[in-house]
Amino acid sequence: MKLLAKELQLSVSTVSKVFTDSHEISEQTKQKVLALAKKLNYVPNPYASSLRKRKSKTIAVVLPEVADSFFSMAINGIESIAREKGYHVLIYLTHEQMEREQAILSDFQSGRVDGVLISISNETTNDEHIIDMMQRGIPVVFFDRVCEETATTRITTNDRESGQLAAQHLIDQGCRNIAYLTISGSLSISRNRLAGVKQALTAHRTPFNERNLVMCTDNEEENLRIIKELLQRKDRPDGIIASVEKLTAAVYLACKELKIAIPGKLKVISFSNQTTAPILNPSLTTITQPAFAMGKLAAEVLFNSLKKTNVTLKAETVVVPSALVVRESTTGRDLG
Amino acid sequence: MKLLAKELQLSVSTVSKVFTDSHEISEQTKQKVLALAKKLNYVPNPYASSLRKRKSKTIAVVLPEVADSFFSMAINGIESIAREKGYHVLIYLTHEQMEREQAILSDFQSGRVDGVLISISNETTNDEHIIDMMQRGIPVVFFDRVCEETATTRITTNDRESGQLAAQHLIDQGCRNIAYLTISGSLSISRNRLAGVKQALTAHRTPFNERNLVMCTDNEEENLRIIKELLQRKDRPDGIIASVEKLTAAVYLACKELKIAIPGKLKVISFSNQTTAPILNPSLTTITQPAFAMGKLAAEVLFNSLKKTNVTLKAETVVVPSALVVRESTTGRDLG
Repeated sequence: MKLLAKELQLSVSTVSKVFTDSHEISEQTKQKVLALAKKLNYVPNPYASSLRKRKSKTIAVVLPEVADSFFSMAINGIESIAREKGYHVLIYLTHEQMEREQAILSDFQSGRVDGVLISISNETTNDEHIIDMMQRGIPVVFFDRVCEETATTRITTNDRESGQLAAQHLIDQGCRNIAYLTISGSLSISRNRLAGVKQALTAHRTPFNERNLVMCTDNEEENLRIIKELLQRKDRPDGIIASVEKLTAAVYLACKELKIAIPGKLKVISFSNQTTAPILNPSLTTITQPAFAMGKLAAEVLFNSLKKTNVTLKAETVVVPSALVVRESTTGRDLG
Repeated sequence: MKLLAKELQLSVSTVSKVFTDSHEISEQTKQKVLALAKKLNYVPNPYASSLRKRKSKTIAVVLPEVADSFFSMAINGIESIAREKGYHVLIYLTHEQMEREQAILSDFQSGRVDGVLISISNETTNDEHIIDMMQRGIPVVFFDRVCEETATTRITTNDRESGQLAAQHLIDQGCRNIAYLTISGSLSISRNRLAGVKQALTAHRTPFNERNLVMCTDNEEENLRIIKELLQRKDRPDGIIASVEKLTAAVYLACKELKIAIPGKLKVISFSNQTTAPILNPSLTTITQPAFAMGKLAAEVLFNSLKKTNVTLKAETVVVPSALVVRESTTGRDLG
């Protein structure tokens, strides 16, 4: 570009504006620059220019997986806004691995995306790779699975209150020995839900039994084994709170195999957005998260920041509340 | 680059090789070229070069949606291979719109990806945008939802045989008036499944009643209404084949509302990979597709082609068979 400018005795900035088709430049100048550019076979680097102007018109959504209806619904919320704004959405999966999350984020150096929406992996214990990306001028908004200390906007649901609500509901249905199933000890959402469960139990003078904190995996068969073990204990629980949607199938299958009646012998409640919840046997009581709304809001916050030259997202947490939907698996009655 | 070459009396190809750090070029020449490039502030366009060398190390997966376990499992299969090869995977969603599919594919002109795996939208009635991309040197492999006429490799399952198997199973269970639910009249997979259903019925001298071909939508409430209407007809069906996983919930909910017993009054079979199939009320008989295997194979075929300089994918169809999994919704017996 410098060469073109020198040759035509124009400023580099003027030449640059020709290539972005700026209205500030006269048609005559444009023709002159483009003619020489063609002669010299000069092609402007679209990525370098889009990096500076944030015009890749693309945002990235970085997620652990899509085989969870929370995430697929959140994507729909995100895309509803992106479509409106004329942006492409790229989806990257970390498969719950911090290493892949880091590799994906470091790839964004190339100016491939204007901004990032992220829900962290359950292995992610530090935010260096995220801060690093923000320092390279790529704004980040967290949704659902957030880093609580990172200085940017976080869209969450009321995980603690939802845990409390779930436990309170089980207590109201007569449960006294409640187990909590999770896939992560480190994720804030899982810790917050558990804190809510403990709070409800403590309020009823039946403190949480730490043996009832059950760590599951990303392997279905392994989860079935772990849950069957739990249900074969002498002091087996009379209520289960599954903090992850995909653990529901393992709980139901374990009960089927062991001939434990739900809700007669065991009451079950899941954090789940599955459309099949009402048609399970028995229909499933859920904490239903506002997945679409959370994705939509996260995208809105991100696009708002992209309109400005200096990206400074407020370090704040925005909470969209979840709902308890009562069905047969805790009450024996189908209210739907 | 031409300017550099002219100035230094080298060939353009030599200069180009300097920027790709080719071992064919002497250290002396490299230094000379790089020094002048620095002086002229010349930065090689990394995307143009990666386009020629196919080194974005990224493949795209273009899908209608992820809220379907076939697609989420297929993605896992694709990523299992991509990880091995050190490639990034970008997921793009068309939301069943041909226009968005075209916009996504035209974005690939920029050298953003080395190759594409695609399962077309249910609106996609021509393959011009796909052929156009192939002509730009970006190889394409279809999986599941394919364009049957496009000259590249297609990974499919045995849709026709599966439709036949499903209908035959319902006939064996006593059904004589079978309905077929779909979301598309144009997709080859849906047409092929329906052809199989018709074949089985014709073989039993009970030809398919065209009124039993029921077109559903992407709206859950609308689908519930459509299916309730079907089940309130005088000649209401005694068996349903849902060709799309997400239609299952609508069928079950419609039966619940109308108090139609499954399988007593209506037998139901779905093309579905949902992990909840065994815990539905009643457990669901399915045609289960080899989603992971199909994704994996599609990725293997694509990566094989990327190893070569000239991409010529064989115009062939590779079939990975599906399985009939019999459960309560057609037999009343739970064999699982």
